[in-house]
Amino acid sequence: MARAQVSEITLRVAYADTDRMGVAHHARYAVWLEMARTEHLRATGTSYREVEDAGLMLSVVALAVRYRAPARYDDLVRVRCWVREVASRRVSFGYAVERAQTGELLATATTDLIATDRRFSVTRVPDGLVRVLEPSPDPVRL
Amino acid sequence: MARAQVSEITLRVAYADTDRMGVAHHARYAVWLEMARTEHLRATGTSYREVEDAGLMLSVVALAVRYRAPARYDDLVRVRCWVREVASRRVSFGYAVERAQTGELLATATTDLIATDRRFSVTRVPDGLVRVLEPSPDPVRL
Amino acid sequence: MARAQVSEITLRVAYADTDRMGVAHHARYAVWLEMARTEHLRATGTSYREVEDAGLMLSVVALAVRYRAPARYDDLVRVRCWVREVASRRVSFGYAVERAQTGELLATATTDLIATDRRFSVTRVPDGLVRVLEPSPDPVRL
Amino acid sequence: MARAQVSEITLRVAYADTDRMGVAHHARYAVWLEMARTEHLRATGTSYREVEDAGLMLSVVALAVRYRAPARYDDLVRVRCWVREVASRRVSFGYAVERAQTGELLATATTDLIATDRRFSVTRVPDGLVRVLEPSPDPVRL
Repeated sequence: MARAQVSEITLRVAYADTDRMGVAHHARYAVWLEMARTEHLRATGTSYREVEDAGLMLSVVALAVRYRAPARYDDLVRVRCWVREVASRRVSFGYAVERAQTGELLATATTDLIATDRRFSVTRVPDGLVRVLEPSPDPVRL
Repeated sequence: MARAQVSEITLRVAYADTDRMGVAHHARYAVWLEMARTEHLRATGTSYREVEDAGLMLSVVALAVRYRAPARYDDLVRVRCWVREVASRRVSFGYAVERAQTGELLATATTDLIATDRRFSVTRVPDGLVRVLEPSPDPVRL
Repeated sequence: MARAQVSEITLRVAYADTDRMGVAHHARYAVWLEMARTEHLRATGTSYREVEDAGLMLSVVALAVRYRAPARYDDLVRVRCWVREVASRRVSFGYAVERAQTGELLATATTDLIATDRRFSVTRVPDGLVRVLEPSPDPVRL
Repeated sequence: MARAQVSEITLRVAYADTDRMGVAHHARYAVWLEMARTEHLRATGTSYREVEDAGLMLSVVALAVRYRAPARYDDLVRVRCWVREVASRRVSFGYAVERAQTGELLATATTDLIATDRRFSVTRVPDGLVRVLEPSPDPVRL
């Protein structure tokens, strides 16, 4: 992922994602961000499943979302994802959630993850992972 | 649970449970059934967490739900649960989902679970569990 | 969809889909079936969003799933969907959930839906919809 | 709710709430916060269902969660909720998520909601609602 440091996925707002307002429920965005983060890791040549199977877990310790416009049922939604910062025990990701057809910004978000072992003891992010998680400037204002 | 072989839980339909129709999404019922089953086990004097921590898993192999009336946002819903049948490797549960205040039947359901070890190999339901899972006649027509 | 009366979607098991057993939680399958059904309708030239915006709702009245093998985290899963039967007020769908890479059957399912207006009064499935919902023989044993 | 300006609910971590790590998935917390907020409103003498039925919606525009310790399967979790600030078009809530039996702090969170009509146009928070949403100092450090 030498150049394309901002990855993207596209998903469709499912009926089960909607709530009584007829739009995607705000809790679903946390799942979409996770899906985008997973594909971001895959695009760097690793996979989170392999990371976790090797005994390392990346646990979300902070989540912040700003909702700007509703995602409606059956909309195609694009989630862009990038690394904001990598420290020895923590990785921060940024996200832009957009209506795919118009590019309208629906939400921006950040998540901070820490590396732990299987017993949730904090550990170092392995060098191999640090190397591929190249930070990118924010492509949108968060 | 000598007498009260039909257990019950009451829950409130959360906003996140609703969909664009303004009623609880049908997939949520599977979660409610599971919550009722968990409390049914607890009422027998065991707990599913302990069962699983001891290395036994009860995996759902069949789920059947008949939806009769919608559960609306903020409704109180009662889920009644009972054991229908216990075999050496399989337990069947029945459920009635009702609007708590009126008793109106919202759904009926059955689930079949098999006992497996942690690698999903089928095993016997332990005698201690069989003893407490006393079958009851269906209190409603399923 | 003159020939391809069995549609299919592919999805990836997300971390949020998994449970403590490390596999996709059984309630998630109901959502996957719904996604497959939505795309099946789209493939016939209509869209469920348009159907519902026109005042008709298709509500699930029966769901039956047989789980045969677990879908693991990060697996690619294929859901095949077809119409089993169309009556004046009811449509039945069949589903096969498979591990995409191996074709292994993970689950089979059926759902029955009835047509209602916005107040949940049962109504007729419109002729235009009946015409495109062409039944297909079951491609797998349910 | 003259004195008890900090409300609380208790819930049990369901199997469906857990993920492959064996703990409650971080996205579920957004749902728990919403459940706590709903009960907070009810404790003030109003109900969000009535608010929405009257044509006013409170939409989440910002969500921030700090996860401090995992909530494990079958744990009892207490969510405390309070109003942090009320403005003419916006209400901010604070939350503390705790393990019920030990009081251990699992997460802290804030959400900002804006008042809109059914078409998502921003509107004023009605006086009647402002009056009952009495702000409280944060009972824990967020």
